[in-house]
Amino acid sequence: MAKWVCPRCGFSADLFSGYYWKCPRCGSPLDIVFEPVYRVSGSGLSRHSGLLPFPPLKSIGEGGTPLVVIDSSSRLLFKLEYLNPSGSFKDRGSSLALTYAYRSGFKRVVEDTSGNTGISITLYSRVYGLEPVIYMPRDAPPGKKKLIRLLGGRIVETNSRGEAMKKVLEASRNAFYVAHTWNPLYILGASTISYEVYEEGEIPDYAIVPVGSGGLFLGIMRGFETLYKLGLIKKIPVPIIVEGVSSYPVYKALHGEHGLKGTSRLADGIMVPEPPRLDDIIIALEKYHGRIILVNDEEIKTALRELIDYGFIVEPTSATVWTAYKKIRDELRGKDILLPLTGSGLKMIEELLKIMRE
Amino acid sequence: MAKWVCPRCGFSADLFSGYYWKCPRCGSPLDIVFEPVYRVSGSGLSRHSGLLPFPPLKSIGEGGTPLVVIDSSSRLLFKLEYLNPSGSFKDRGSSLALTYAYRSGFKRVVEDTSGNTGISITLYSRVYGLEPVIYMPRDAPPGKKKLIRLLGGRIVETNSRGEAMKKVLEASRNAFYVAHTWNPLYILGASTISYEVYEEGEIPDYAIVPVGSGGLFLGIMRGFETLYKLGLIKKIPVPIIVEGVSSYPVYKALHGEHGLKGTSRLADGIMVPEPPRLDDIIIALEKYHGRIILVNDEEIKTALRELIDYGFIVEPTSATVWTAYKKIRDELRGKDILLPLTGSGLKMIEELLKIMRE
Repeated sequence: MAKWVCPRCGFSADLFSGYYWKCPRCGSPLDIVFEPVYRVSGSGLSRHSGLLPFPPLKSIGEGGTPLVVIDSSSRLLFKLEYLNPSGSFKDRGSSLALTYAYRSGFKRVVEDTSGNTGISITLYSRVYGLEPVIYMPRDAPPGKKKLIRLLGGRIVETNSRGEAMKKVLEASRNAFYVAHTWNPLYILGASTISYEVYEEGEIPDYAIVPVGSGGLFLGIMRGFETLYKLGLIKKIPVPIIVEGVSSYPVYKALHGEHGLKGTSRLADGIMVPEPPRLDDIIIALEKYHGRIILVNDEEIKTALRELIDYGFIVEPTSATVWTAYKKIRDELRGKDILLPLTGSGLKMIEELLKIMRE
Repeated sequence: MAKWVCPRCGFSADLFSGYYWKCPRCGSPLDIVFEPVYRVSGSGLSRHSGLLPFPPLKSIGEGGTPLVVIDSSSRLLFKLEYLNPSGSFKDRGSSLALTYAYRSGFKRVVEDTSGNTGISITLYSRVYGLEPVIYMPRDAPPGKKKLIRLLGGRIVETNSRGEAMKKVLEASRNAFYVAHTWNPLYILGASTISYEVYEEGEIPDYAIVPVGSGGLFLGIMRGFETLYKLGLIKKIPVPIIVEGVSSYPVYKALHGEHGLKGTSRLADGIMVPEPPRLDDIIIALEKYHGRIILVNDEEIKTALRELIDYGFIVEPTSATVWTAYKKIRDELRGKDILLPLTGSGLKMIEELLKIMRE
C-alpha cells in the first residue's frame, strides 16, 4: 500500500489517511513510496498505472504525447509535452493531484502560482467538480490570468509572491493546497514521460531538462531509475539541467556566482529562486554525473525561432533545452538525446510576437 | 501506383506527374486512387502509411491524438483533434499536402483562408523549407492572423474573400496552391482519424461531425469505408453532420430553407457557403442514412462551457458536435458515438473570454 514517507526524519503514513504537502514532523519535502509493477494497458497516463501509487480517476487526454525523432549530429528525441490538454507537462501531475483531492473528499483547491501550473490545476479542478482558487501577484502575466478565468478559476490577486504564499497557507485550512513544488505527485506524474519514451523503444544517453522547482527533472530521473531497478534498462541517461542566468539556485549551490552577462526573464517557468527540493536535485545530478547549462534571453529568442522551423510552437521556457543542446552539440555527437518541450506557445501568441520583434 | 482520378469525367494521371487542385478537363474535385494495405508501424500519422498514397516525409507530432471515452447515457468517444501540433485536425491533411509540394519541387505555397488551415499550412511550409503566403480579407480574425505571422507566414490582405480567391489563383502560377477545400489529401489525412479509432478497439455506431467544406466528414467516412472494404469492420457509423443556422448548404440542398431563428457566426470553421464537394457530402450522407443537425450561437456558447467542465479547451466550431449530440441524446441512448473535437481554444483565449461573458 502506498505511503507518505519523509526521507529525512522517517515520518510515514498511509497515503489516504491524511494529506501532507510537507513533512508534519520536520518540514522536509515528502516522498510517496509504493511497489511499482511494469504492466501496460489503456492509453495516456493510465497506461502506466502500475508504476503510479494510484491511477488517475478520469482522463482528459493527458500523457501519451508524441515523441518526434530527428536525426542530426545527435539523435534528437523531442517529447512534445506542450500537446498535453492544458498545454504543458504539468497536466501529468495535476491529473494525479486532483484525483487525490477528489478521493480525499476536498471541495476546494488552492494554489499560489502564476504560470502553467495554475492553468493545469484549474482545468483538472473543473473536471473533478472542485472549486479552484489561484493566488497570484497583481503583476502576474495577464495572458495566463485570462486563461485561468476562462477555465472558471477564481483568482485572488496579492501585492507580492510572499503575500500570495501567506494567503494560500491561510486558505489551505479549508481546502486542498496542491503545493506543486513540494507535492511528490508532480514528480510521479512526470516519471511517466520516461515510461513512454522507453515504451517507444528509446533509451536516451542524455536528457536535457529545464529546472525550476525540479519536478520535471526529478520525475524523468525517477522514471528511468524505476525502469533500471525493474531490470528493464541497463543504463540511466546522463542529466543535463538548464537554468537561466537570472535564477540559478542549483548552479549557485554547486559552483557559486556565474559572472555571465544577460538576463533570463523570458524563461519564467524556471524562475524559482528557492526550490524546496534543491538537495534532491543536487543528489540526482551528482549521482548520474550530470551538469548544468545556463542560458540567457538572447539565446532563448533564437531557439524559439529555430524550434518553429522544426514545427514546434512552444513557450520560451521550453526553448531553453534547445539552447543548451546547441552549446554542447559537439560533445553529444552520435548520442541519443531526450529533449522534453514543456509548454505550448499557443497560450501566449501576443507575447511571443512581441518577443520575436524585439 | 497512386493516381489522380476524376470521378466525373474519367481524367486520370500519375500522382507525381503533375499537380492538379481540380480536374483540368471538367473542373470537378479530383480523387486520389491507390491500393490501401492495412499494416501499422511507427506512430502518429505515419503509423497508417499503408492506407495513404504516400507517407508524410517529416513528422512534427501530427495524428495519434487521444481518444477520451466517457460513459454517459451513450458511450462518448471524444477524439481530441485540437491536440495536433498547430491546434487542429487540419495538420493531418497539411502534413500530406506539404510533403507533396516538397516532393514536387515547389518553393512557395499559397492559400486563401483565414482560419485554422492557414495556421496549419504555414507551420508545415516552414518545416519543409517552403515559403508560405496566405491571402485573406482585411477583416479576418486578428488572433489567427497574429499566429500566422508568428509562424513566419506572409499575409496578403484583400478587400474581400472574392479578391483573395482571385489573387491566390494568379499567384498559383508560380506556387503550390494548397486549395484545401478541393485537395483530396485533406480527406485522406482526415481518414487516419478512423484508423486510429479502430486501432483502439472502437467501432462507433454514430459519428457526429461538423461540416464546412466537408473534408473532415468525407475523410472519416472514407476511413471507415476502407476498413469495411478490407474486411476489418462489419459496419460503418451512421453520420450525423452539423451545420450552423447561418450557413447550411447541405441542409438547404436536401430540405430547403430551415426557418429557424438565431445566427451561427461563432462557428466560423463551418461557414463555407459553397463547398466544392457538396455532391460527395450528400451522397455519403444518404448512403449511410445520416442526418443533419443545425445549431446556433447560443447553443454553441453553452456547449463551450460544458466542454471545459469535461476538460476540453476547444474553439466554438468544435463545440457544435456537443450541441448536436445533446439535441438527439435520447435517440442515441446506449450507442457508441464518435465526437471529433476539431480545434484548440488556446489560439483564441481573448475571443473566448469575450464570448463567454456576453
